[in-house]
Amino acid sequence: MSARFGERIALLAHEKFPERAKTAVGVLRYGDYDVAAVLDRERAGTRVADVLPAARRADAQDAPVVASVADVEDADALFVGVSPIGGGFDESWRPDVRAALERGWDVVSGLHYFLAEDEEFARLADERGAEIHDVRRPPGDLTVSRGVADEVDADVVLTVGTDCSAGKMTTTLELVRAARDRGIDAGFVPTGQTGIMIAGGGIAVDRVPADFVAGAVERMLLDRGDEREVLFVEGQGSVVHPAYSAVTCGIVHGAMPDGMVLCHRAGQTAIHGYESFDLPPVGTFVDRYEAFAGAVSETEVVAGSLNTSDLDGAAAPGGGTDDAATPGREDEDADARARAAVEEYAADIGAPATDPVRFDAGEILEAVLR
Amino acid sequence: MSARFGERIALLAHEKFPERAKTAVGVLRYGDYDVAAVLDRERAGTRVADVLPAARRADAQDAPVVASVADVEDADALFVGVSPIGGGFDESWRPDVRAALERGWDVVSGLHYFLAEDEEFARLADERGAEIHDVRRPPGDLTVSRGVADEVDADVVLTVGTDCSAGKMTTTLELVRAARDRGIDAGFVPTGQTGIMIAGGGIAVDRVPADFVAGAVERMLLDRGDEREVLFVEGQGSVVHPAYSAVTCGIVHGAMPDGMVLCHRAGQTAIHGYESFDLPPVGTFVDRYEAFAGAVSETEVVAGSLNTSDLDGAAAPGGGTDDAATPGREDEDADARARAAVEEYAADIGAPATDPVRFDAGEILEAVLR
Repeated sequence: MSARFGERIALLAHEKFPERAKTAVGVLRYGDYDVAAVLDRERAGTRVADVLPAARRADAQDAPVVASVADVEDADALFVGVSPIGGGFDESWRPDVRAALERGWDVVSGLHYFLAEDEEFARLADERGAEIHDVRRPPGDLTVSRGVADEVDADVVLTVGTDCSAGKMTTTLELVRAARDRGIDAGFVPTGQTGIMIAGGGIAVDRVPADFVAGAVERMLLDRGDEREVLFVEGQGSVVHPAYSAVTCGIVHGAMPDGMVLCHRAGQTAIHGYESFDLPPVGTFVDRYEAFAGAVSETEVVAGSLNTSDLDGAAAPGGGTDDAATPGREDEDADARARAAVEEYAADIGAPATDPVRFDAGEILEAVLR
Repeated sequence: MSARFGERIALLAHEKFPERAKTAVGVLRYGDYDVAAVLDRERAGTRVADVLPAARRADAQDAPVVASVADVEDADALFVGVSPIGGGFDESWRPDVRAALERGWDVVSGLHYFLAEDEEFARLADERGAEIHDVRRPPGDLTVSRGVADEVDADVVLTVGTDCSAGKMTTTLELVRAARDRGIDAGFVPTGQTGIMIAGGGIAVDRVPADFVAGAVERMLLDRGDEREVLFVEGQGSVVHPAYSAVTCGIVHGAMPDGMVLCHRAGQTAIHGYESFDLPPVGTFVDRYEAFAGAVSETEVVAGSLNTSDLDGAAAPGGGTDDAATPGREDEDADARARAAVEEYAADIGAPATDPVRFDAGEILEAVLR
């Protein structure tokens, strides 16, 4: 991506690394930054490699885990690598944000609480010439969609899901990597805070006024679409989600994708956090997305991505894609179970499928780019 | 509704009344206010009844048209009754807003530009003890939906459409009136600025962060649902709209309606303002809405509302529902054409239908409340 938020960075993840620090883990796995340190006062003295299990494809950058900004020798940006429910700022993080700004580092945050509006941080940033990037703040000049995203030169591939945390961001990033591995000029279009931090720019569409969701996605595609052969757009939520479908639907219509990749977590039967809502059979999602998207532009579910991390011996805790996508150990039985699940999933949706972390996104690339 | 924005009001509609003053016309037709005057400096000296043709069901309150606030003898609120594209404030309105606040009137506006953030208006309001209601400003404490709107005691009926300006607000209000005429305790749940001004409260969901659209609708239903027998929810946009579907979809899932009323403008074949997008056949919308809504809660399209105003001798200019829903003259031929169109529409969607302005929402009430 062109815009980046720093070269050498520190990731704040106090008391939450790695299980509850999805953003930090995402940046460690997919970001193109030199990570100087992870801040977690409870894990200080360890290293990322000690606490974050390796993933076959999505291996994470190693780095020391330290207690505070004072323990980081040099860096040029501090990333807030956690996103607590509600998106509030934890006052126990203040000394580190303050210390980073005092050292002239930029600060990058995806919290709902905008750090640039914090009086102390704003003053410090101003004094030290540091920038504060609140990546969930929508641009002030958004507009409604004009319905022209399909005019970009690039092919547009959108990940869609049966639920939140089904692996849409991970799948999108693995597809970008697999395409680039084959010499294809692929671009990543992030729509959520972790993706934006990884890419160094983008719009967090869940925070955008509802009227402008499709327009925000369209703008990102128009900005990037004529420079790339293919653009992989990170989807959000699910077309059946009781709370988040507005975001999902705005992205689907705004992106006008040439193809969609359906992401699902193996074995899931209810909406996460909304367990009274059964997940419809996965096979029905093909028609759900094709019918919904097709009213604006013809498209198809061209492939599937199945998150099989729960098929490892011990199910991963929490619902986070990045964390749960980590096989705890090499496990041939689990791989066999995962392969069987992927095959069943492919049959259900009538399209090639893989687990892009356990196996390889390259397995579905041909179908995606046909 | 409980909260009202005034008793005796003036409606600002300079140079736009009535054709391009949808909000003013909506308030004149459906609001429960005593309208002291309409402000239109180009029409001063006329009366509402001279320039706004009568509608069979949706007749408008008469009032003098005057040039400025100075010409209004007494009132307690000024409503901005126009909503220009872009939602900006026209500086030529400043003397009237200033004069209203100086007289201690409240000011009610649905502009994107928030009058309460205008330095002069904020100071005047403070000095005179007047309130400024920017009805498009979302509440600051919105949350995601919990998926529980269906737990309210009231039956919930949602209007949905094939496009914007298909008559959803008008249909919703006519259904409320028809139900009340039969002694049913019916409530109106507004989701757009004109509806909010009519109701005296509500949330303009198009301005709400996308994550919170369903939650905003759910909140309005939970606030009102246990006091009413039936709640009629004003829908927005269309499930096939390239720009606005996020709003539509968030409302559909947030409302968890018991039944939906499909609104359509007779003869329309493309998305208004997006003419390269054909409107799918109206019959397909039944399945589109039922499939989309049904993933969250079982529901059906129980009736249809057809806006037949274009079947009058001269097609109404513009796309505004309120204005275009005005039959220019009694026309028996037009009525016959409209009745035939309604019958064809009913057959297409497999449900009873009417034109609630030309005919009577009572014709579909039984189907809606079954």
